[in-house]
Amino acid sequence: MQERTPRRYVIVTDGYLLNRHAKTAHGMLRYTEDEIVAVIDGGYAGKDVADVLPALHRSAPIVASVKEALPFAPTSLLVGVATAGGILPPQFRAHVLDAIDAGLEIVSGLHQLLRDDPEFVTRAQKSGARFWDVRLPPTSIPLFSGAAYRVPQVVALAVGSDCAVGKKSVMIELQRAAVAAGDRAEFVATGQTGVMISGKGIVVDRVISDFVSGAAEQLVLGVSADARYALVEGQGSILHPAYGAVTLGLLYGSAPDVLVLCHECGRELVEDFDVKIPDLNALRRMHESLLAPIKPAACVAVALNTQRLNEAQAREAIAAAQRDTDLPADDVVRFGGARLWTAVRAAATQTAKARAHAQPLQA
Amino acid sequence: MQERTPRRYVIVTDGYLLNRHAKTAHGMLRYTEDEIVAVIDGGYAGKDVADVLPALHRSAPIVASVKEALPFAPTSLLVGVATAGGILPPQFRAHVLDAIDAGLEIVSGLHQLLRDDPEFVTRAQKSGARFWDVRLPPTSIPLFSGAAYRVPQVVALAVGSDCAVGKKSVMIELQRAAVAAGDRAEFVATGQTGVMISGKGIVVDRVISDFVSGAAEQLVLGVSADARYALVEGQGSILHPAYGAVTLGLLYGSAPDVLVLCHECGRELVEDFDVKIPDLNALRRMHESLLAPIKPAACVAVALNTQRLNEAQAREAIAAAQRDTDLPADDVVRFGGARLWTAVRAAATQTAKARAHAQPLQA
Repeated sequence: MQERTPRRYVIVTDGYLLNRHAKTAHGMLRYTEDEIVAVIDGGYAGKDVADVLPALHRSAPIVASVKEALPFAPTSLLVGVATAGGILPPQFRAHVLDAIDAGLEIVSGLHQLLRDDPEFVTRAQKSGARFWDVRLPPTSIPLFSGAAYRVPQVVALAVGSDCAVGKKSVMIELQRAAVAAGDRAEFVATGQTGVMISGKGIVVDRVISDFVSGAAEQLVLGVSADARYALVEGQGSILHPAYGAVTLGLLYGSAPDVLVLCHECGRELVEDFDVKIPDLNALRRMHESLLAPIKPAACVAVALNTQRLNEAQAREAIAAAQRDTDLPADDVVRFGGARLWTAVRAAATQTAKARAHAQPLQA
Repeated sequence: MQERTPRRYVIVTDGYLLNRHAKTAHGMLRYTEDEIVAVIDGGYAGKDVADVLPALHRSAPIVASVKEALPFAPTSLLVGVATAGGILPPQFRAHVLDAIDAGLEIVSGLHQLLRDDPEFVTRAQKSGARFWDVRLPPTSIPLFSGAAYRVPQVVALAVGSDCAVGKKSVMIELQRAAVAAGDRAEFVATGQTGVMISGKGIVVDRVISDFVSGAAEQLVLGVSADARYALVEGQGSILHPAYGAVTLGLLYGSAPDVLVLCHECGRELVEDFDVKIPDLNALRRMHESLLAPIKPAACVAVALNTQRLNEAQAREAIAAAQRDTDLPADDVVRFGGARLWTAVRAAATQTAKARAHAQPLQA
């Protein structure tokens, strides 16, 4: 885990700014409390992020190179993409080298660890640049023990129909709504962007598979004692052929009391695969029936991502989801988290009461 | 992957010989084609394995130390346990050091890599001893791509109600029965003992969780071209709070055509957890419904482990399982794999035909 130190970021997205793989950049632009002094993307140089991606509500100049970003006094270069397989895009290499030569800290959430790259290391030795490979987990993670079943907090986990449907954003919005409502809620980061935003957490998809439930458990055990709610960022999807294992490890390991079901309206197939996404009720049953023999938890809210819809369509989709599932539904990024948080809190409180009477599992 | 070179093993189980964590020793004693020249276990020194564990059908002297084993001319010391968390039991340390000093190869399936232990390394530098840390995966495993959906082999995967119910043994017995019946079947090892026995494979629970499906896919893609059946060793259980993620990664990544459902009669709770094992039909549905949206596969046989039952009870349990599930059932370790293999092959052939008409998933 890393403590959050204030940074002034230049984010490199060269060629990816509007691509779904730039979700690290998008998440940081939307949620980080650090400064973002510039974005490097040649195709949009001269524009502002606010013009190109108005939904993110952040202004930052777009430039073509590290050199052009230096006058904005960045402390850190952030690799703004999460490519499949976590490989550094080749066109990013020159920017990373320029940033190293300028002595900037290099922050990356890729599987490919930049600190292991001989050329980067050699150049960094000259300039004093440092690396924060956010994805690297702590060296010693214990096996899942069952201790997560007995944490004092109410644990809510985001689960979803696919990768990149907004599970992280949902939990951050709910956490902010909770705090605004005077509730002590902590966001629990499980992915690289979440860890960059919150300054702590474990990127669970990087953990050795035998220990992925254990890592999720450690995260839940590490929530600060004065928090009453732990809002755990979800990963992948139980439906995803490549990432389902990570999803299940998090589902079992974080031992949630309640689930928030996330889905992007209009998405019909799982990312990169010809796997049909079933309807919300079927998806809900999949998760609930997996947890039923182990530690039962119910879906208590539906969080829709309506970015492909206009506002009237979005409100209609939310109403339809609510009708179909008989659960409270909303798009918390678009319309704010207050309403859904109230519903999650109410359900979570009910569940927590029920849990007090349940037989705890013994490790 | 490692090629199998003939070895003469001394297996250390000191204090664990009859313990379930000695499953590495038990699996090797039952199935390896290498020599086992001695077993080190102080409590049984002077006896023979055949007396202490007659069910394994292997004779080997039990001694108290490496020194007493050396006259049998071992080439390798095998750490015969798979402890929770994969840590070397403290009392094994002296035996490992003695074996290193004697210049033996040290073979271990533990998570704790013996090649990373400074004392072991220093001593090995003097004696020339080498380490085979079987659990260490290849350095470069790609993400799951969907290529496994198009392998020419019929893929059968063992799934089970718990860890250590006999999934590996079932697939080895079926593979031997297949070969005896003239069928070209390959056993695909996914765990440390399986890899030691077959000389190739990947220990999937050691793979970074994002790549566990990808590792399973690589194993299936690596089956020799002239094999018609790939019989994949299962791992963990979808019901297991700590290991379910590995199980799901293997389930999705190996892309099975058929499943063989494994269960130990009399086992009611999942290892170390108060999780009730549901009945065979419920367990079957759990697996089939997870695979249904992705690449459907059916359970086509039930493999029971009846080691806690006498022969009459075992035959009754098998008949009951067959009646309850309407699937062929047997204990292939106790009664041989011929009958169940015939059933699996028939069902697999049916499935393979059906698959030829199915829409392949696109990566």
